[in-house]
Amino acid sequence: MLKHRLLSKIFSTWIDEYQEDARFGLKGKIIIDEESEFQKITLIESKRYGKALLLNNCWMTAEHQEKQYHECLVHPALSSAEKIYKILIIGGGDGGTARECLKYREVQQIDLIEIDRRVVELSQKHLPEIGGNAWKDERLNLQIANGINWVAQSQDNSYDVVIIDGADPEGPSEGLFNKAFFEDCRRILKDGGIFSTQSESAEAFHAIHIDMVKIIREVFDYASPLYGNVPIYPSGWWSWTFASMKKPRYLKPIPNRVNEILQSCEIWSPRWQSGAFNSIPAFLERALNQ
Amino acid sequence: MLKHRLLSKIFSTWIDEYQEDARFGLKGKIIIDEESEFQKITLIESKRYGKALLLNNCWMTAEHQEKQYHECLVHPALSSAEKIYKILIIGGGDGGTARECLKYREVQQIDLIEIDRRVVELSQKHLPEIGGNAWKDERLNLQIANGINWVAQSQDNSYDVVIIDGADPEGPSEGLFNKAFFEDCRRILKDGGIFSTQSESAEAFHAIHIDMVKIIREVFDYASPLYGNVPIYPSGWWSWTFASMKKPRYLKPIPNRVNEILQSCEIWSPRWQSGAFNSIPAFLERALNQ
Repeated sequence: MLKHRLLSKIFSTWIDEYQEDARFGLKGKIIIDEESEFQKITLIESKRYGKALLLNNCWMTAEHQEKQYHECLVHPALSSAEKIYKILIIGGGDGGTARECLKYREVQQIDLIEIDRRVVELSQKHLPEIGGNAWKDERLNLQIANGINWVAQSQDNSYDVVIIDGADPEGPSEGLFNKAFFEDCRRILKDGGIFSTQSESAEAFHAIHIDMVKIIREVFDYASPLYGNVPIYPSGWWSWTFASMKKPRYLKPIPNRVNEILQSCEIWSPRWQSGAFNSIPAFLERALNQ
Repeated sequence: MLKHRLLSKIFSTWIDEYQEDARFGLKGKIIIDEESEFQKITLIESKRYGKALLLNNCWMTAEHQEKQYHECLVHPALSSAEKIYKILIIGGGDGGTARECLKYREVQQIDLIEIDRRVVELSQKHLPEIGGNAWKDERLNLQIANGINWVAQSQDNSYDVVIIDGADPEGPSEGLFNKAFFEDCRRILKDGGIFSTQSESAEAFHAIHIDMVKIIREVFDYASPLYGNVPIYPSGWWSWTFASMKKPRYLKPIPNRVNEILQSCEIWSPRWQSGAFNSIPAFLERALNQ
């Protein structure tokens, strides 16, 4: 992907993510291009969306194009879980998910389990606005560790919300997409808790999306995909899936929490959320009901 | 954009649409690359979405990626207008919009006004599935003419539904985005009629989208944008705007019509439509209410 690396640190070049004979690219200069213990990490300064992060040549986030992802992953869960004292985030090394969670005063502790120390270090240095004040917040407990092991070793009924903020199912994120992992997530969730995960593009990764939603529905009493837009991701059309026991709790934001966060949100609102849960195309509704 | 034209008819190459330092490309072979009287027309055979059409280097439609656009433009209007005997389509030379309209038995006449004869000829030859049986349907009245003049010269109260299926606001489509044009559209619409137009990306063409919705709201009693996904368009996130007089008639599909078309739709359903009207991000709701 990144030919002429030296020149591309001086002159703007096109940096593209390739996916099944389609590509999406941003013009920019390369700031960082390194191999960590787990993956290739690239940081660019783009004209369109400011500084942007790629892992293994896939777009992850960008300074001026990240609320579409982080607000959608967090607020349907945190606005409606019975309690939100203790939150678990698996992945999320750029800090954006933690930042959105910390908007709620009720949140007392966030365990943020990121496998790759370099993602955190580079995000703190080059993408400080994405983490915002989260990195300094005393409620944030950052652990550089394997999230799958963390979930397996956590006690039953220990978290109010569990959020999976991982990359596509390959490399270090591969184990975040199977039934054993989702069962552990359910086990460590308290009664009245909500599980939230990014669930890929129903267009670019159709089979993965369908499988994920169906498996999560086997593990939890209720699970619903929510559809939105992340222009830098393959197809630009993305999904997040929310799950809970006994009732689909994630469909009913709690008014006091809505009032607390609404003004600070660019994307999320109760109306938007209701629309995003319902804007499931006919072909997907049929595929999920099969 | 298209260097090495001769070679690209033999070997696959990347064909990209560029928009403000971002680009979206498909890999494919170039079939047609010509200048018509009005615009540059390119047809490619892509691996991802089959044959695809570009006008002035912008993605317009593709064989396996077109229902996202055509169903969204047509069904919120035709499923809910009081009557749907006589339909006007401005643009739409690929035939996809007419094909969706002709699913309704009540439709008696469609005037399809396309300015560029070559778009129709090339679509009929290379994209026959997009028009489907529409080209042979006796209810279709195809006219190669200027749509703005057609609307200006049409009688008051002469159409049940008016659909604007044009390209971005430059070249032959420029006049489809101003108040005088929308006022003519309202004038020629019957009582109980619905106006429908594509209204650009609220992300990639933010200012144009906001202006369009606000102007259409000045002209009609009610107008609402609906948000969906067209992966080949800039940002992948697209909008359509529907308008009517006296009540927001486009929000209430008529059950008999729903039953008539539901099984043949890939994207549209009453649930999807309700979600797509509500999935307006908070920042857009604020911008439109200013």
